[in-house]
Amino acid sequence: MRENRLRTLWRNDQAVLNGWLAIANSFSAETMAHQGWDSLTIDLQHGVIDYAAMVTMLQAISTTATVPVVRVPWLEPGIIMKSLDAGAYGIICPMVNTREDAQKLVAYSHYAPRGTRSFGPIRATMYGGADYPSQANDTVVVFAMIETAQALDNLDDILSVEGLDAIYIGPSDLSLSLGCRPVFDDVDPKAAQAIDHIVERAKAHGVYAGIHNGRSDVALARVAKGYRFVTLGSDARFLAAGSQAVLGEMRAGKV
Amino acid sequence: MRENRLRTLWRNDQAVLNGWLAIANSFSAETMAHQGWDSLTIDLQHGVIDYAAMVTMLQAISTTATVPVVRVPWLEPGIIMKSLDAGAYGIICPMVNTREDAQKLVAYSHYAPRGTRSFGPIRATMYGGADYPSQANDTVVVFAMIETAQALDNLDDILSVEGLDAIYIGPSDLSLSLGCRPVFDDVDPKAAQAIDHIVERAKAHGVYAGIHNGRSDVALARVAKGYRFVTLGSDARFLAAGSQAVLGEMRAGKV
Amino acid sequence: MRENRLRTLWRNDQAVLNGWLAIANSFSAETMAHQGWDSLTIDLQHGVIDYAAMVTMLQAISTTATVPVVRVPWLEPGIIMKSLDAGAYGIICPMVNTREDAQKLVAYSHYAPRGTRSFGPIRATMYGGADYPSQANDTVVVFAMIETAQALDNLDDILSVEGLDAIYIGPSDLSLSLGCRPVFDDVDPKAAQAIDHIVERAKAHGVYAGIHNGRSDVALARVAKGYRFVTLGSDARFLAAGSQAVLGEMRAGKV
Amino acid sequence: MRENRLRTLWRNDQAVLNGWLAIANSFSAETMAHQGWDSLTIDLQHGVIDYAAMVTMLQAISTTATVPVVRVPWLEPGIIMKSLDAGAYGIICPMVNTREDAQKLVAYSHYAPRGTRSFGPIRATMYGGADYPSQANDTVVVFAMIETAQALDNLDDILSVEGLDAIYIGPSDLSLSLGCRPVFDDVDPKAAQAIDHIVERAKAHGVYAGIHNGRSDVALARVAKGYRFVTLGSDARFLAAGSQAVLGEMRAGKV
Amino acid sequence: MRENRLRTLWRNDQAVLNGWLAIANSFSAETMAHQGWDSLTIDLQHGVIDYAAMVTMLQAISTTATVPVVRVPWLEPGIIMKSLDAGAYGIICPMVNTREDAQKLVAYSHYAPRGTRSFGPIRATMYGGADYPSQANDTVVVFAMIETAQALDNLDDILSVEGLDAIYIGPSDLSLSLGCRPVFDDVDPKAAQAIDHIVERAKAHGVYAGIHNGRSDVALARVAKGYRFVTLGSDARFLAAGSQAVLGEMRAGKV
Amino acid sequence: MRENRLRTLWRNDQAVLNGWLAIANSFSAETMAHQGWDSLTIDLQHGVIDYAAMVTMLQAISTTATVPVVRVPWLEPGIIMKSLDAGAYGIICPMVNTREDAQKLVAYSHYAPRGTRSFGPIRATMYGGADYPSQANDTVVVFAMIETAQALDNLDDILSVEGLDAIYIGPSDLSLSLGCRPVFDDVDPKAAQAIDHIVERAKAHGVYAGIHNGRSDVALARVAKGYRFVTLGSDARFLAAGSQAVLGEMRAGKV
Repeated sequence: MRENRLRTLWRNDQAVLNGWLAIANSFSAETMAHQGWDSLTIDLQHGVIDYAAMVTMLQAISTTATVPVVRVPWLEPGIIMKSLDAGAYGIICPMVNTREDAQKLVAYSHYAPRGTRSFGPIRATMYGGADYPSQANDTVVVFAMIETAQALDNLDDILSVEGLDAIYIGPSDLSLSLGCRPVFDDVDPKAAQAIDHIVERAKAHGVYAGIHNGRSDVALARVAKGYRFVTLGSDARFLAAGSQAVLGEMRAGKV
Repeated sequence: MRENRLRTLWRNDQAVLNGWLAIANSFSAETMAHQGWDSLTIDLQHGVIDYAAMVTMLQAISTTATVPVVRVPWLEPGIIMKSLDAGAYGIICPMVNTREDAQKLVAYSHYAPRGTRSFGPIRATMYGGADYPSQANDTVVVFAMIETAQALDNLDDILSVEGLDAIYIGPSDLSLSLGCRPVFDDVDPKAAQAIDHIVERAKAHGVYAGIHNGRSDVALARVAKGYRFVTLGSDARFLAAGSQAVLGEMRAGKV
Repeated sequence: MRENRLRTLWRNDQAVLNGWLAIANSFSAETMAHQGWDSLTIDLQHGVIDYAAMVTMLQAISTTATVPVVRVPWLEPGIIMKSLDAGAYGIICPMVNTREDAQKLVAYSHYAPRGTRSFGPIRATMYGGADYPSQANDTVVVFAMIETAQALDNLDDILSVEGLDAIYIGPSDLSLSLGCRPVFDDVDPKAAQAIDHIVERAKAHGVYAGIHNGRSDVALARVAKGYRFVTLGSDARFLAAGSQAVLGEMRAGKV
Repeated sequence: MRENRLRTLWRNDQAVLNGWLAIANSFSAETMAHQGWDSLTIDLQHGVIDYAAMVTMLQAISTTATVPVVRVPWLEPGIIMKSLDAGAYGIICPMVNTREDAQKLVAYSHYAPRGTRSFGPIRATMYGGADYPSQANDTVVVFAMIETAQALDNLDDILSVEGLDAIYIGPSDLSLSLGCRPVFDDVDPKAAQAIDHIVERAKAHGVYAGIHNGRSDVALARVAKGYRFVTLGSDARFLAAGSQAVLGEMRAGKV
Repeated sequence: MRENRLRTLWRNDQAVLNGWLAIANSFSAETMAHQGWDSLTIDLQHGVIDYAAMVTMLQAISTTATVPVVRVPWLEPGIIMKSLDAGAYGIICPMVNTREDAQKLVAYSHYAPRGTRSFGPIRATMYGGADYPSQANDTVVVFAMIETAQALDNLDDILSVEGLDAIYIGPSDLSLSLGCRPVFDDVDPKAAQAIDHIVERAKAHGVYAGIHNGRSDVALARVAKGYRFVTLGSDARFLAAGSQAVLGEMRAGKV
Repeated sequence: MRENRLRTLWRNDQAVLNGWLAIANSFSAETMAHQGWDSLTIDLQHGVIDYAAMVTMLQAISTTATVPVVRVPWLEPGIIMKSLDAGAYGIICPMVNTREDAQKLVAYSHYAPRGTRSFGPIRATMYGGADYPSQANDTVVVFAMIETAQALDNLDDILSVEGLDAIYIGPSDLSLSLGCRPVFDDVDPKAAQAIDHIVERAKAHGVYAGIHNGRSDVALARVAKGYRFVTLGSDARFLAAGSQAVLGEMRAGKV
């Protein structure tokens, strides 16, 4: 079975550099995959992407060594299993707020006896190899998103769920839920405290922690604190930022 | 009829800042259209885009004041007319090498008596207004690409074709055809000379000249020489450049 | 933030004329949006439309002043949030039968502290404006569909849920559930009585009431009774009716 | 081989009632096909439709007895042959202005020895039957569009091309080319005269004549003059007209 | 209303030969539908297919007498109802493990008073006929998948749910859940025993039993034991097997 | 630059085993690519595939070592260049009947100074490598289809065109043009003679010869005669053949 470089990097105590895809297109996904990201996450939740586009994007990413990850829209078994069957090597699931949520997530994403994932890895065997059925449980990485006050309250209960590999923080949602401004980087103190707390508890439970970032200085600081999966920017943000930079230069030149 | 801001800017002797779309997606097109480009060109020639995607991208651009332009794959009446019917306010046509080519281009893109464009502006009337049929000939802008040694030889013959509004230079193709390296900005002397020559002849004929650029300093210099439609970067290039910048910062930070 | 004309019309005690889209196509959506409807509803439930087509249709509608509304397939957080992120200014949710259903609907469609909507208004900020995050809760309109005997039993419990702006009646489903024929206009007495009752209770609770109609005389009568959001026909029905009219005239002429 | 009802109706001296599709969607096409049209034309020229959508629309039409016809964007062998391979039983080709144009059209659309159509009727054999290869030449109907002053000048030369079954008039383009207003029904006298002239010459040559119409009274009058294939309205026009009718009634009712 | 040949065959005590579609394409679906399968199942669960592709595939199948069946991704009302509205004559639902699951499945797929299916059979009436609303409950066939140890434990509770027409076995999932290897044909003894047991109990309850097979000898043996709906192979498997056969012959010939 | 295995195999005097794709889907293409074909040809001419689907299929093939080839619909520069830009490593062009046709084909598919291909290898550089611009002319393989009596008459003129790497025979079209039955394998004597003649002349000119086959025995015999690129079957044919085999077994078993 093809290795999951997320696990390889983690075994070496290295952080994963994750890119983000919100545009439903296989050519833009392939372009991003050729830039050197360790992994790319196809965002089915807030990205403008559905399952059909995701499949072609997974194929595009599969032309490179970049690891394909999918953020599903919700904790719903249908789309989690379809994403895995299509070859996702990582699943990020939003709004895991309770121990029961986390248990469901583990169940939906692992074959028996560890879980209740239905069998039919139609593209995953092409991507992963013929032994995917027996190796998938130990290869795929599942991230539970910790992004609400409720999840914070249940943090240890969630982190102790057997089979949960990793967690992922959406700073915007976490901030909103704590009554703070919804931003990625310069979060309010209450959110900042939570972000520090979560990575500490995750380390204590042997669970890998990931987080969404806007700027590299913030991402580097978070890696220093123990985060091992850091997202930076997104395809859509690169379009806006690249345009703004160029237009600014031209308008400054009176054009 | 909705004005064509290209003509408005030109009447004021201002240059048009044109963005470039190679990704077949209406959300990325809409994102680009919200950045402040004067116009956006959907590239059906070297972009990874076909007619069906183009229609949704034209709609996305139409949610803003940015002028929609289409580069067609070739001097072929079917796609030129379909692009116009779909609401393109500008057409860029590759490889116009002879006076006859230029005459065909004008014919395909104008209604009788000026040309032979077939009647059926099905989306163009929604975009442009109910008087599109009578105003289109004077509103839409047509660019003939001057990008070969043959076109250079025939330059005055081409520029003097009645109804040809504008020309557009692809520095890569022009360079290749002249035996130089295919680049946008730091072109070889022979190509640089041609680029200067073309804008001079265009001005002499009262034809607007446009050109593809990679960097803003180059674009500004070309505007200073008389170019009035300058393209900078593209959606796909912004993805690569934005990723490279961020990844460089992170790798420098040992992540 | 761009105003929601539904709220503007309602403040002036005017009824909203709503068109209906069952065809998954951005050009037909744009054609409909240019006819003067106050709002257009993209029907993801019984229409033959999925999320990907919906996005292009929302863009097409956004080229006009018509307000974009989405009927989701079911009370499910994933698609409700994705529709809002894509720029829907109204959500119609089927089969809201209990107070708990209505509370979930409000939660899924509002940001904290009013609800639990996840943050990521990727296209909504382009459509609504940069202040969408802070204004969305007070701008977007959410309709709970009252269309079963059970919902009738729980009517006041549903209508008193805080944050529920509006309700919408599907006369067919309501009729079926009451043991009547599933029609839009000439409903059986039991359904007619329920339709009158619902608008009365809605008015008592300060909740706006909408309803699906086939004919304009029926819609006018319902407006007179207090309905403030009336749907008439649909794209697919106009195709059938228009064809039948023309074919009837021709066959009568012996062609 | 499945009969071509166009030929059957013509053998009985009956006119064909043809509907028109400009919306790229298989569900709207199927809806139209269920209304009783003798044939439906998928318009790849001025309709907002490409090849990929056309295939699904041909399949949708194939669920009924309605005959599928395709108007190609231009006299170009690639798309003519692809449309036939996909199961079109009729081809309408724009802008056939000379005898040579008409000869090319016949060549592209018939197998040797009558023409040079390339062999590969991949979906056509499913639609037509296993004997499609040997019967297609005598089953498919090819229409040359007569819509310019030049075509009028060459009318007899065109009509006498062997293998040309039928012609089709676009009153808008014909009017434009003759210096008249581009309309379907109430054409200017010069265009009206041409329309009468063309059907007379077609009859003289044993070629069937078709024409585009907006209103049924005009279509009936043209059938009376000898036209045997009359188009009425289109899917997009039914959307606009249906909406206008309903909105007019509601606005009149002060809603 | 168009008959459901599944019911007709069953009334004659004949088994249904079912083909399987995992490729999201209407042309491949039409090709399969022309081969003589009694029914074809579009697999939205493990197949690489979403709703939008499914609609075009249902249309493609509707050009033949083959019965269209859909396997939904999960026991979720939105997609079950959308599949039925789109004209599916059979629904296969995965992971029905309890009596409550089975009751929900029956409720979601039948109109009141038998269930709670929402009314809007937009394509189903075109496929089935104008009396679809009154006949659908007795025409459509619903299969509950029995594929876990839990479902085996609850077998009689499930089979006795009123309105449940049929069950379907996924031998892979059933095997996995019982601690056996996930295969279709040569299942481990424990799974084999369960497969025999299930069909016996189904017969006792008057419920039709279906099962997934890889080879025809296995399918024939299962029909002999009482299975009345047998799936064989799939589109994707035919591609692999056909390629392997040909490549093997060529490589043996030293090419 | 990534090698073109067609050239590598040919240098070793080995024949290329080529598979054929007529289904517009990236998952079926990826499935085919995993079977071990040396190359796969995406058929834009008689296959039911357009440019947009082709791009995703090229990406799917790029996940393996199989060489991606495209058959274009016609000798038209737009689609030839777009296919190359999208990463095709081989182009098969139908109906090359004259020396001028062959010269155009070579011109359209090579950069200056060898040809007039426009510069913009947007996906090709990702697939082939950064040195694609300088290496493409010597890497990509171009096949001229010899499939008419006219081409036979001009055979030596065509084969001697500089830069023409290879030819490809469509036995059906060649047969039709010679007045024979349109089949792949058991061609009529006149066509058989032509097929033998063509490979002899190709060898004399140092041009590689390819041919379409239905059965492996025929393909093996043709390889023995000197053909070095043999196509066998197609995705659509495997679906039909696989279904027929299984259905035959079941019907023989009285199911």
